[in-house]
Amino acid sequence: MPIEKRKIIPVWEAVRSVLDQTFELPTETIPLEESDNRYLAEDIKTTHDVPPFDRSPYDGFAIRAEDTNGASKQAPVILNVIDSIGAGHVSEKTVQEGEAVRLMTGAAIPKGANAVIMLELVSERDSVHIEIRRTVLPGDNISEQGEDTEQGTQILKKGSKIHPGAVALLATFGYERVKVMKKPVVGILATGTELLDVGEELVPGKIRNSNAYMIASQIKKIGGEPHILGKLPDDFEQTYTGIVSALERCDVLITTGGVSVGDFDHLPAIYKKMGAKLLFNKIAMRPGSVTSAADYKGKLLFGLSGNPSACFVGCELFVRPYLLNALNADKVHLGVLKTELQEDFLKPNPFTRFVRSRVEWRGSAPFSVPVGLDKSGSVSSLAEANALIVLPGGTRGWEKGSEVTTLLLDGEGSVWPWDLAEKSKL
Amino acid sequence: MPIEKRKIIPVWEAVRSVLDQTFELPTETIPLEESDNRYLAEDIKTTHDVPPFDRSPYDGFAIRAEDTNGASKQAPVILNVIDSIGAGHVSEKTVQEGEAVRLMTGAAIPKGANAVIMLELVSERDSVHIEIRRTVLPGDNISEQGEDTEQGTQILKKGSKIHPGAVALLATFGYERVKVMKKPVVGILATGTELLDVGEELVPGKIRNSNAYMIASQIKKIGGEPHILGKLPDDFEQTYTGIVSALERCDVLITTGGVSVGDFDHLPAIYKKMGAKLLFNKIAMRPGSVTSAADYKGKLLFGLSGNPSACFVGCELFVRPYLLNALNADKVHLGVLKTELQEDFLKPNPFTRFVRSRVEWRGSAPFSVPVGLDKSGSVSSLAEANALIVLPGGTRGWEKGSEVTTLLLDGEGSVWPWDLAEKSKL
Repeated sequence: MPIEKRKIIPVWEAVRSVLDQTFELPTETIPLEESDNRYLAEDIKTTHDVPPFDRSPYDGFAIRAEDTNGASKQAPVILNVIDSIGAGHVSEKTVQEGEAVRLMTGAAIPKGANAVIMLELVSERDSVHIEIRRTVLPGDNISEQGEDTEQGTQILKKGSKIHPGAVALLATFGYERVKVMKKPVVGILATGTELLDVGEELVPGKIRNSNAYMIASQIKKIGGEPHILGKLPDDFEQTYTGIVSALERCDVLITTGGVSVGDFDHLPAIYKKMGAKLLFNKIAMRPGSVTSAADYKGKLLFGLSGNPSACFVGCELFVRPYLLNALNADKVHLGVLKTELQEDFLKPNPFTRFVRSRVEWRGSAPFSVPVGLDKSGSVSSLAEANALIVLPGGTRGWEKGSEVTTLLLDGEGSVWPWDLAEKSKL
Repeated sequence: MPIEKRKIIPVWEAVRSVLDQTFELPTETIPLEESDNRYLAEDIKTTHDVPPFDRSPYDGFAIRAEDTNGASKQAPVILNVIDSIGAGHVSEKTVQEGEAVRLMTGAAIPKGANAVIMLELVSERDSVHIEIRRTVLPGDNISEQGEDTEQGTQILKKGSKIHPGAVALLATFGYERVKVMKKPVVGILATGTELLDVGEELVPGKIRNSNAYMIASQIKKIGGEPHILGKLPDDFEQTYTGIVSALERCDVLITTGGVSVGDFDHLPAIYKKMGAKLLFNKIAMRPGSVTSAADYKGKLLFGLSGNPSACFVGCELFVRPYLLNALNADKVHLGVLKTELQEDFLKPNPFTRFVRSRVEWRGSAPFSVPVGLDKSGSVSSLAEANALIVLPGGTRGWEKGSEVTTLLLDGEGSVWPWDLAEKSKL
């Protein structure tokens, strides 16, 4: 099979063409306890006022403010304590003239009372009489129903990822079950005759299929449900049949080859035979220039390189935003940060490079150290990288100390990290 | 029950006293596909050389370098192509004088060959003859077995959290199953007569139990296995019995109250009755000054405040490092960063404050915006915060623009974030 002529496009054009594809995910309703890291399928509103009733912010006594008119050290007012209530209880009594109810923080204000005086400002004469030596105003020390937030206020947005704070809000407002987006099912097919299963003994000429497991882990982290669908040998018919049948079992399909070159020779022809609409099959980036994507009847196929670095980067740059878009997230791309480059990259490259690196901080100043540039690092960089340095392609190199755009592998993500890149003709 | 006199200690002393406790977790061996976010129970070493055999980094021809001696445009050398192999295959032939084997990237170098010449530097005369017009040196274009990494090299450390890159390494080296630390079982007990279950209708005087669900979500994120063990009313005997019986079912126990004050009056007396060794029961921090911890027969009990903010902060500052320490992680505390404060906090406070906030970046400069300072924010801050600003206690306030220590709720964590704090007498 001859290698087809490929049209090369910039990274952000490839990203945009992926985001232009629509992809509808169903929703499902699940128990709150299982909702961590899922994406909300609807806006969440408060189901009651906060506080839900007039309550006391302190331990103290609920009183009628008017009973303290004129009270002073010289002329204290004596009130009868008619009840004592803890949080969670409601007094059945009504506070009448000359009466008070003792209450704990969070307890509801009893009927008849219109103010609270704090415990430490009161003298307890005996078990049923208190002495007040100051004037209290109506409303003093009462947290009024709804004063924090009214019922019906939106507190979480559709597409939010559920984290511990969101769980607290959902519990507070009685969301025992939560409507979330179903996880997109992502099929993963590894191609390459040289691939062994993870459990197989190494034999001459072969290597183990690590990319499929790596992609599965990336997909889980993004919020999808990976299905490793096995391996295909380097054979056109078997690869074609494997891809078509895999597509029936997933929402999105990712293929990855075994080594760096040659694995993708079949893909353009397979896309053509399937009648899939090609989005791109060559990108001005290193690693991963042979990354491809095609739309087959509304399902996207990603052809990631078999080179582990290229495969990793392709999944983060293209598959991530596609899946997060379907999950209604608003920050679908990797987070972005300017960092100080800690190595020289003096040799210019016409393609934009993505360099696996570690971002760290000196106080508030972030710097990025490329990992895995030496040979042994090509293995360990997989363990250590927490970011990708973006080195725009062109006629210049990059010196140690340069400020470079850096994409963060962990954390919140960004709305569109490519603006700076586009402006600088990345 | 009278409130006992409590001895107040600085935050980092409380953290240190927690880390001084030992806590042995068992290990378990699980399938690689289920190992995401788990903590390795052993160092991981390469099980073979990388590359595992001498291989070609390019598409080309394996040759004997000596056959090209003196080759030039004027005097090309002609070689017989005796075999053609793809990645994953091994040639059964031995390259003899005047012979070559065509191979694809990643293919093993056949016997007899000692160099590779790239496809594009060769003229193919016919299907079995190539013409070479330059001298090739022995070793040219051969990736030698073990040149990247030798067998037995450590690539992942005990205590590492398993992420996609680590999964790729484990797959590459045949770790079909992975030895990880068992998840610590964390019991969660909510105390407070005012608490309703999440599914219950709101009734006057009561609020729903949101802290238990929030803590469960935090524990999962940290790497533990939360068990919500129900609610206890504000009653000494019932709370005592509930705690003792809960401790039998978990490695660590967290209690949390329902509202801000009063909930913890029982705890010191309960610790005493149990014969638990108190680590601390008052900390110079806001919120959460009444946070306590005690050691009962080698199991730690954390008494977190019932105030949602205090409960959240207490779990992140004290429970997190205790669990991660048991999981052998090396960065057991929240990540730390200096940021520019975006609000005035002019009123001094003798206690160290932890202010829920959002960290964002302008280019490479991080700034932090407190969330939830207004009343309505007390609800929404749970949704929006991604960090805690640390405002050291003392006699001064903090102005907008100050550089402040900030703890990050997401990402990698830190080894010990309190150094700066200690130096600045936080």
